[in-house]
Amino acid sequence: MKVVVAPDSFKGSVSAHDLCAAIRAGIAAAVPSAEVVELPMADGGEGTLETIVYATKGRTCECIVQDPLGRPVKAMYGILGDGQRVIVEMAQASGLTLLQAAERNPLVTSSFGTGELIRHALHAGYRKFVVGLGGSATNDGGAGMLKALGVTFKNADGGLLPEGGAGLADLYDIDLSGMDPAVRESSFRIACDVTNPLCGASGASAVFGPQKGATDEMVRSLDEALNRYGEVLLQLTGTDVRRMAGSGAAGGMGAALLAILNAESGSGIDMIMEAVDFEHHIQTADLIITGEGRLDQQTLSGKVISGICQRAGRYQIPVIALCGSMELTNAQMDELGLTAAFSIVPGPCSLEQAMESGAQWARTQVEQMMRLYAVKRWRL
Amino acid sequence: MKVVVAPDSFKGSVSAHDLCAAIRAGIAAAVPSAEVVELPMADGGEGTLETIVYATKGRTCECIVQDPLGRPVKAMYGILGDGQRVIVEMAQASGLTLLQAAERNPLVTSSFGTGELIRHALHAGYRKFVVGLGGSATNDGGAGMLKALGVTFKNADGGLLPEGGAGLADLYDIDLSGMDPAVRESSFRIACDVTNPLCGASGASAVFGPQKGATDEMVRSLDEALNRYGEVLLQLTGTDVRRMAGSGAAGGMGAALLAILNAESGSGIDMIMEAVDFEHHIQTADLIITGEGRLDQQTLSGKVISGICQRAGRYQIPVIALCGSMELTNAQMDELGLTAAFSIVPGPCSLEQAMESGAQWARTQVEQMMRLYAVKRWRL
Repeated sequence: MKVVVAPDSFKGSVSAHDLCAAIRAGIAAAVPSAEVVELPMADGGEGTLETIVYATKGRTCECIVQDPLGRPVKAMYGILGDGQRVIVEMAQASGLTLLQAAERNPLVTSSFGTGELIRHALHAGYRKFVVGLGGSATNDGGAGMLKALGVTFKNADGGLLPEGGAGLADLYDIDLSGMDPAVRESSFRIACDVTNPLCGASGASAVFGPQKGATDEMVRSLDEALNRYGEVLLQLTGTDVRRMAGSGAAGGMGAALLAILNAESGSGIDMIMEAVDFEHHIQTADLIITGEGRLDQQTLSGKVISGICQRAGRYQIPVIALCGSMELTNAQMDELGLTAAFSIVPGPCSLEQAMESGAQWARTQVEQMMRLYAVKRWRL
Repeated sequence: MKVVVAPDSFKGSVSAHDLCAAIRAGIAAAVPSAEVVELPMADGGEGTLETIVYATKGRTCECIVQDPLGRPVKAMYGILGDGQRVIVEMAQASGLTLLQAAERNPLVTSSFGTGELIRHALHAGYRKFVVGLGGSATNDGGAGMLKALGVTFKNADGGLLPEGGAGLADLYDIDLSGMDPAVRESSFRIACDVTNPLCGASGASAVFGPQKGATDEMVRSLDEALNRYGEVLLQLTGTDVRRMAGSGAAGGMGAALLAILNAESGSGIDMIMEAVDFEHHIQTADLIITGEGRLDQQTLSGKVISGICQRAGRYQIPVIALCGSMELTNAQMDELGLTAAFSIVPGPCSLEQAMESGAQWARTQVEQMMRLYAVKRWRL
């Protein structure tokens, strides 16, 4: 019997990695002979780097780069198990969690550190990049990232623009002549499920600005600045990214990647699944065990479980989901293609108890599931 | 696929009967073609009558008899589906729940009404009796019951004893000459898992007296009275029931049944399983679903689930248990012979929520279990 274990994290309770270990232990207790393949999942947001590196048996490289406010910060990029592909995650160098609440200010925060991570990897010889865009603190259209790669941003007087989204209001020219030549030899893929455009009511500033610390007024000026940025990109590249889906991801980082770095865009879960060779692993599996903290209406439009079920369906592999809280109807499960789903809680309990006991309870519940699942084999 | 559904009640939440319906619905939703046999279980205590009557497709007969204090009360006995056997339950006519808390007084409460139920059934022509001893309010050694069948209890002056346990202190002679002759043509079986003797520190008065309203002093006088009763029974029958296991059940009702009615004693669950033809039903089953409110250490010494697992083990039928709260270790499950166990709760919740939602949640969880269980079939 072969079981592929591919849970998302239970947010606030257990990481996908720890869940894999707990589920493996539960399987082993019930069916010691089962082969278990651990493929912790993520949705392209924070945690994707660790997930992919772990799942592909890759490694990480740590560097000192600039945080969103220009201070030194330790950050890492990942090298996948194939030794070829690099994963860079914006949250590492340019993430919102690197700032105190009072420091959040998208007028000035910069994606420069993410560019430094790419530069480090380029210098180490890597040319294939996956960029995870979740959790950024910036609204600078990826200008900081481009600067770190040698691009210069000038105002009408030929002066250099300051870091941050606000400065783009004065943008007159983007000069690519100093860009690291290794960039042109490289391919970039964006792991991102955000489809917002760079500008406008559903643009980067309006939709994601507020959670990065923007007031209404700041949103207006940031949107104008990104609009100016879009005009200059149009002049430079012939591509108008201002209404382009995905260009608004990560404070406009999408725009820089699409327009200047010719990035291919794809859903985070697709890229993760490709990176970990998901379809290869499940083709010979008897069963897939996945999970997320809460199974409900949102799971249908979510990425991880629907992505897994979609692929499992191609090979008719049953998918069982674990969760903290099970709120799916049977019709919703059938829509997803989910075989069965079980809450890990062993009885009435508080949310806090469930959060604290996530790994232990997951292990126990998987044991029961596998005892039930394996029963037919014993009889046959 | 054939599934035998044999849960105990979830006490305070759902009856065994309603659980059967919920489980049936869950199975039908997941595997519409499955054959389902409902065998609601009970442990020989209150509820056993309804359980056996329902499970054997029998019927009930209602009579007006005396309650523990001599007041008229509606009570019923059951006729099993075979049309031959009768089940009489002490709780019906002589139960503690028939009294207000302030009325509880084992010095005077009588089992007369239970004897009347037997008499009614004898007059209707029945000769095979199962007597359920759970939940009695009495400590009269079954003297009331015997009186209803025509036995007389006299003091040294030849006067008749009053009802209740205290009166037995003056017992001098038991006269069987007036006993209904149909009694001698009848067989009696006791469905009871209590092994306490009639008298002494582990006797009826000391162990069960207090919950029936006895003070320490009343316990002492009741124990002395039952001791006198035991002496007279010894003179009359040659059998000393005072230290006999089971004679202390139901306030000494066990003694009357064993010594005078020559009852056979058996565990409640055994009798229920025999009555519902449990082994016959499971021999062709693929799966048994049982359950009780709480699966824990006590389940190992409990009756229903261990009884089911024991029989299921003979035919290698997997047993899955539902519960409100799952606290068994794997080692304990293996000791029981339980294949797997699942709490019905779908996530963090209060005990009250779980109690209220018992039937609905059981249905939903069974659906998931069956979707998982059935998966192997689809693949094979």
